[in-house]
Amino acid sequence: MQIAIILGSQSDLKSVKEGVELLRKFKVDFELKVLSAHRSPKQLTSYIQEAEKKGVKVFIGVAGGSAALPGVIASQTTLPVIGVPVETKSLKGLDSLLSIVQMPKGVPVGCMTIGKAGFVNAVIFALEILGIKDKSISLNLKKYKKDMAKQIKDIRIKL
Amino acid sequence: MQIAIILGSQSDLKSVKEGVELLRKFKVDFELKVLSAHRSPKQLTSYIQEAEKKGVKVFIGVAGGSAALPGVIASQTTLPVIGVPVETKSLKGLDSLLSIVQMPKGVPVGCMTIGKAGFVNAVIFALEILGIKDKSISLNLKKYKKDMAKQIKDIRIKL
Amino acid sequence: MQIAIILGSQSDLKSVKEGVELLRKFKVDFELKVLSAHRSPKQLTSYIQEAEKKGVKVFIGVAGGSAALPGVIASQTTLPVIGVPVETKSLKGLDSLLSIVQMPKGVPVGCMTIGKAGFVNAVIFALEILGIKDKSISLNLKKYKKDMAKQIKDIRIKL
Amino acid sequence: MQIAIILGSQSDLKSVKEGVELLRKFKVDFELKVLSAHRSPKQLTSYIQEAEKKGVKVFIGVAGGSAALPGVIASQTTLPVIGVPVETKSLKGLDSLLSIVQMPKGVPVGCMTIGKAGFVNAVIFALEILGIKDKSISLNLKKYKKDMAKQIKDIRIKL
Amino acid sequence: MQIAIILGSQSDLKSVKEGVELLRKFKVDFELKVLSAHRSPKQLTSYIQEAEKKGVKVFIGVAGGSAALPGVIASQTTLPVIGVPVETKSLKGLDSLLSIVQMPKGVPVGCMTIGKAGFVNAVIFALEILGIKDKSISLNLKKYKKDMAKQIKDIRIKL
Amino acid sequence: MQIAIILGSQSDLKSVKEGVELLRKFKVDFELKVLSAHRSPKQLTSYIQEAEKKGVKVFIGVAGGSAALPGVIASQTTLPVIGVPVETKSLKGLDSLLSIVQMPKGVPVGCMTIGKAGFVNAVIFALEILGIKDKSISLNLKKYKKDMAKQIKDIRIKL
Amino acid sequence: MQIAIILGSQSDLKSVKEGVELLRKFKVDFELKVLSAHRSPKQLTSYIQEAEKKGVKVFIGVAGGSAALPGVIASQTTLPVIGVPVETKSLKGLDSLLSIVQMPKGVPVGCMTIGKAGFVNAVIFALEILGIKDKSISLNLKKYKKDMAKQIKDIRIKL
Amino acid sequence: MQIAIILGSQSDLKSVKEGVELLRKFKVDFELKVLSAHRSPKQLTSYIQEAEKKGVKVFIGVAGGSAALPGVIASQTTLPVIGVPVETKSLKGLDSLLSIVQMPKGVPVGCMTIGKAGFVNAVIFALEILGIKDKSISLNLKKYKKDMAKQIKDIRIKL
Repeated sequence: MQIAIILGSQSDLKSVKEGVELLRKFKVDFELKVLSAHRSPKQLTSYIQEAEKKGVKVFIGVAGGSAALPGVIASQTTLPVIGVPVETKSLKGLDSLLSIVQMPKGVPVGCMTIGKAGFVNAVIFALEILGIKDKSISLNLKKYKKDMAKQIKDIRIKL
Repeated sequence: MQIAIILGSQSDLKSVKEGVELLRKFKVDFELKVLSAHRSPKQLTSYIQEAEKKGVKVFIGVAGGSAALPGVIASQTTLPVIGVPVETKSLKGLDSLLSIVQMPKGVPVGCMTIGKAGFVNAVIFALEILGIKDKSISLNLKKYKKDMAKQIKDIRIKL
Repeated sequence: MQIAIILGSQSDLKSVKEGVELLRKFKVDFELKVLSAHRSPKQLTSYIQEAEKKGVKVFIGVAGGSAALPGVIASQTTLPVIGVPVETKSLKGLDSLLSIVQMPKGVPVGCMTIGKAGFVNAVIFALEILGIKDKSISLNLKKYKKDMAKQIKDIRIKL
Repeated sequence: MQIAIILGSQSDLKSVKEGVELLRKFKVDFELKVLSAHRSPKQLTSYIQEAEKKGVKVFIGVAGGSAALPGVIASQTTLPVIGVPVETKSLKGLDSLLSIVQMPKGVPVGCMTIGKAGFVNAVIFALEILGIKDKSISLNLKKYKKDMAKQIKDIRIKL
Repeated sequence: MQIAIILGSQSDLKSVKEGVELLRKFKVDFELKVLSAHRSPKQLTSYIQEAEKKGVKVFIGVAGGSAALPGVIASQTTLPVIGVPVETKSLKGLDSLLSIVQMPKGVPVGCMTIGKAGFVNAVIFALEILGIKDKSISLNLKKYKKDMAKQIKDIRIKL
Repeated sequence: MQIAIILGSQSDLKSVKEGVELLRKFKVDFELKVLSAHRSPKQLTSYIQEAEKKGVKVFIGVAGGSAALPGVIASQTTLPVIGVPVETKSLKGLDSLLSIVQMPKGVPVGCMTIGKAGFVNAVIFALEILGIKDKSISLNLKKYKKDMAKQIKDIRIKL
Repeated sequence: MQIAIILGSQSDLKSVKEGVELLRKFKVDFELKVLSAHRSPKQLTSYIQEAEKKGVKVFIGVAGGSAALPGVIASQTTLPVIGVPVETKSLKGLDSLLSIVQMPKGVPVGCMTIGKAGFVNAVIFALEILGIKDKSISLNLKKYKKDMAKQIKDIRIKL
Repeated sequence: MQIAIILGSQSDLKSVKEGVELLRKFKVDFELKVLSAHRSPKQLTSYIQEAEKKGVKVFIGVAGGSAALPGVIASQTTLPVIGVPVETKSLKGLDSLLSIVQMPKGVPVGCMTIGKAGFVNAVIFALEILGIKDKSISLNLKKYKKDMAKQIKDIRIKL
């Protein structure tokens, strides 16, 4: 297993569909868990240790509001941790964003954009990290990037 | 020991002077530690358990930026946890405030105003909680409140 | 009666259902009133005095916008006051949050997260405060916390 | 006495100098008190009643942070209440502004700009209100407005 | 005519219904116009002069976004000008609020809360101003305030 | 005269030094006035008409806070109007920015970045507009752009 | 071709309908492309060069979120670049606005209001720029402005 | 060379001292350049290609305000790009943060906290990425983490 994805709440599952499909397309091994820094802290700690043993290379933490999850993962590992702020009902994810990005010196989290696009980007970022070691991932990413540009070029506008 | 005060960083010590003096005036037993949710998570967990064993009734967590500290304490205890958001250099404590106050359902933190006044208020709030059980604290708080009103009444304005 | 809950407006009633159910489950005596700091200040003052006489230990004030209610309660008692900021139409509760949390030195309000989750957390926080004196509440809270962690553990993800 | 000015804190005195001078220039009778909605609520209520008896026509409330003062005055009178949000250390008066301006339906406060300019404007606004009844004030305001425009016209720019 | 109400856009008409009904209930003479500071500046200037000649005592300006209307009225009169910030699609009226409230020294606008409640409050504030001169308005306002408190008292909560 | 620069306040003069030097270097004719939309509205209207007669092609309006100036210019001309939001004491120019940029449909203002850099950019933007008609300005702008890139290239870093 | 309009994403097409109709009414030649600064940077660079060769006088860049598009265009041309911030799902376009407007010294973008109105205004602003050289455009803009004022004058209010 | 650090402006050099020292301590090869996405876009593109040829594994982009730099790097590579938002004079880095973090789907940037701590964290995050491949870096990171916790444990508080 190369990527461990942790969601802070079951309701975050709706944000991960497109990113999970991308991981499958890239044929990269991953695991997806719901574990909360605030509501199940012990299980979270156990899982982080377990994941490291299973050989995970990158963590992705998805959380909203106070959103301590990515930072708490980062406090317990020296593997790269990517954080995805989830949109919240009232403050629209500005709270999640600031909680995830404003980490203290010494404990980095790589924060993505708010919401579903943020999770897709977390997956791509994780692939970019794995691509440093694994040439086939790196080549697939280059293809993905070219396809993205081509899709835009092919747009035909009708006004 | 009745109140356990945890600062997320040594630099937060400058915010606690007035509140600590108030605790001494009220003759309530407390302990003050520097422990970080992000930089020393294991020691924090140990201390929370140790403090509960020492009979602590209320936790106060002081932190800035991502400010996971009060929420992480609250995830590990069922005692009331008071959070004090520290002013940060760039975002002036709005980040600290949102991180502390926007806790998920099930894990409350009682959030105070940003900065030094917030720590004084955390102390008073802790005393109000202890006052439910301890009549002498409750009476001293009533006196404190009257003195506060009297001080305002005695202001002589010269324009 | 142990907890006095005051809503600043009838429209806030929709935010309290889940929290009220929790109080009933914990079998803690409470009272729920609609009273406004701005529109019925005298009745509010009378009720605060009346509630103290009835032996209330904790106040919960729920309000939106200018949201003076929790602070006005706190100005008239030395019991702990918990504030719940209600989401507002335009500013989404950021106004309510800042009004409730930014209390002056000497008059604390323990502020919860915005909206319905905030009221549930206010109830749990009130129970944590009462739990200091009442062992059965404290034990029930520990059970509640364990159940919460278990619920997360039992989530089965289908992608 | 025509205008009652209430400051929420002694520290707000530094914001009122220029406005007070303007009131003296306009020879309008006023009174200036320090009284806090949160720290001396009873004295505030007494003073509002006393001021009404003295024939006051307009209230000005100056406050920072949670800034309940102008709204609390407005809850106890049907005279016009003008609110001046004071700049705060961390949130720079955005908290004060939202607390003062976001009043519920039925209890208006006329909110001014943040800080010293806000107090000068509160004074001018109070004079505009009094000017409806008192022609000499109205004429002096017209002169003040012309002088203001003239001062700008007379600026000589050297680059 | 005692109150001149100016809306910056036809779309603001939906915000004024309740306030207009209140004015009719109070039997106070008013006029309602759509005139834009940005799109019809000359007509606005003409109308301000015309309204003053008709004996208007208070202006109410309702506007959104850049919301220059209340300030532009205030720049051309020494009568009190009340501003009502309208909710905008993207920034939810925070833009309207800051544009209306942050007036420069010398040119006050009394700013109300964002949206429909803001217009109702503008009407009440205008009535409070007129009430200084007109005892019957003042007495009706006192009755209105009592009724408001009574309505809250009469709320029966069913949980 | 090709560019008319209007400052809303004398205090804005400190923001324009570098931009004015640039205009002199480009040898483009301009005029600089202090005129306020709120404090000297008639003189502002007169000057806009006068500037158009003098053959001005672009207006630059510099203002802070409520910052109605650029929008009020735009309401009275069909020439391009560039707006520069000035940093304010409390809200740091966020108020100025939103007031200038959030113009209603039909009356555009081209808004620059907050502060001194904003005024330099307003000057460059005005030159870009004039450059469409005047080849020499256009050529000088191309040279300016190349020099800017070269300056960056020549930076020698010593760590 | 006089105006080159570049949209950062196909989804921005829904924001341009009214502005495109206005361009057709003014009979000004334009081109509309979807090209992303982040997803198709090379094609964007090619198009900017191509557009300049075709004689384009003004660029309009429409983008949301990180919204680098208008700035990236401005980095590669000395023609005036107008930026339109698109509303985003979570942060409602505040992110787009700040990204577009806060350009560094030396590389201006003229930023419009957020959303559809912003694109209409970008078109009018582009016409104002072209109007400096082309009298017929300038005359049509004057007519457009008069019609706009007349439309407001003709509003009949029924309450 | 393993890490390419690009600063958007010479003034950002003051933010990188501590992070550069850390890189030297870890004995990881890096290069530091000043190159602007807005002011020297061609040189930036050349350097990105050059750096990839030199075998760079991670990019760090440091920028303020509109802060397009990290996103523009990410648009031209499939290596991981870390972004550091620099504090700005007026908006304190909130603009930089949103510009860097709100990237569109498909082009991730891993965003760090605002300012100097953000650059130190970017360095640690880059080391964590390199550590996946290079065991000695990974071991050094574990030691660094332990030392960090120990430093906190060793704090002696004197009140």
